[in-house]
Amino acid sequence: MFKLPPPLKKIVDVLSELPSIGPRQAVRLGFYLVSRGQGHIKNFADALRDLGKIKVCERCFFVHENKGNLCDICADQTRRPDVILIVEKETDLISLEKTGKYKGRYFIIGPISKLGVLDDWQKLRLKNLLSFIERELGGKAEELILGFNPTSLGDVSAKLIMKELAPRAKKMSRLGRGLPTGGEIEFADDETLGSAIDRRS
Amino acid sequence: MFKLPPPLKKIVDVLSELPSIGPRQAVRLGFYLVSRGQGHIKNFADALRDLGKIKVCERCFFVHENKGNLCDICADQTRRPDVILIVEKETDLISLEKTGKYKGRYFIIGPISKLGVLDDWQKLRLKNLLSFIERELGGKAEELILGFNPTSLGDVSAKLIMKELAPRAKKMSRLGRGLPTGGEIEFADDETLGSAIDRRS
Repeated sequence: MFKLPPPLKKIVDVLSELPSIGPRQAVRLGFYLVSRGQGHIKNFADALRDLGKIKVCERCFFVHENKGNLCDICADQTRRPDVILIVEKETDLISLEKTGKYKGRYFIIGPISKLGVLDDWQKLRLKNLLSFIERELGGKAEELILGFNPTSLGDVSAKLIMKELAPRAKKMSRLGRGLPTGGEIEFADDETLGSAIDRRS
Repeated sequence: MFKLPPPLKKIVDVLSELPSIGPRQAVRLGFYLVSRGQGHIKNFADALRDLGKIKVCERCFFVHENKGNLCDICADQTRRPDVILIVEKETDLISLEKTGKYKGRYFIIGPISKLGVLDDWQKLRLKNLLSFIERELGGKAEELILGFNPTSLGDVSAKLIMKELAPRAKKMSRLGRGLPTGGEIEFADDETLGSAIDRRS
């Protein structure tokens, strides 16, 4: 059996542990890094070390570099603390935040498994949210918005979280469904068209 | 416009420079690394630093960790130095070497652009090969095997390299074409079947 030199094998193993990178791609990336030379590799390693400076917000679990324990959004006094949009991923938060439409807070629960159960650290995060609502919002949030994908998995996730949080919110909602802007009726699927009819405005 | 914290932005930039990793995937990988925590990030950075120990063979341009400047294959006195298999990529060399069928040497030219021209460092590598043939093989290799993919791009690459190297080889060849083992005649394309008929044995 052919063997890669151990340092190359090591980086290939590390790369192939990353989500969405397969073993073949990892080997190709390993050779690519070698071919780019020392300067490039050092630059990459330095960038990784600097990543250690990133902190995770103790309230919503988004990233930040602030002195305290809160991210920019949670530390922003002009944003409503009692309207909380729950998302699976940091990238979902970013997409929603880029609209500039939303002036409440967020909460990142993490990707929910296809089994429709929360893992241990998700339970911890949820506990964290519940105690925030208890402590800072007098036991009930004004509104909790479920920002899950409009997919069957997203529906399962929303139901799961809804069950946990319903007693702690005056109002619960999900992001609106309907025709995506720029889309064409002719090419929309039945579910989307059905939602567009139900939620016409 | 929404901004990522600079250390996260930096690693996302480094990741998205890697071949086959797009900007969205780079952002997701960046957040993944943060979520895995310090220990994992340090492990990754250490693996990258160790990659600096990898050397590139001065003769065939494959990787090695030897004291000298030659890789294991080029340093192996039992392998014929005058039969050289030219491949585009390290991973092609590995696939061929795993067969255990080949007892000559290799030469990695690097992926040839779709324009069908060699870039400057490929010209340097080729010059290196020509001077090896001149110096060590008395001006002509016994056989040069072109190990390019059986695709139209591979054909263009083979023609290009053939033109450069033909005066320096007693014999030039390409890897055999025909039915892949385990394949079915019914599902083979015309080109493959044609090759299988032409090269029947």
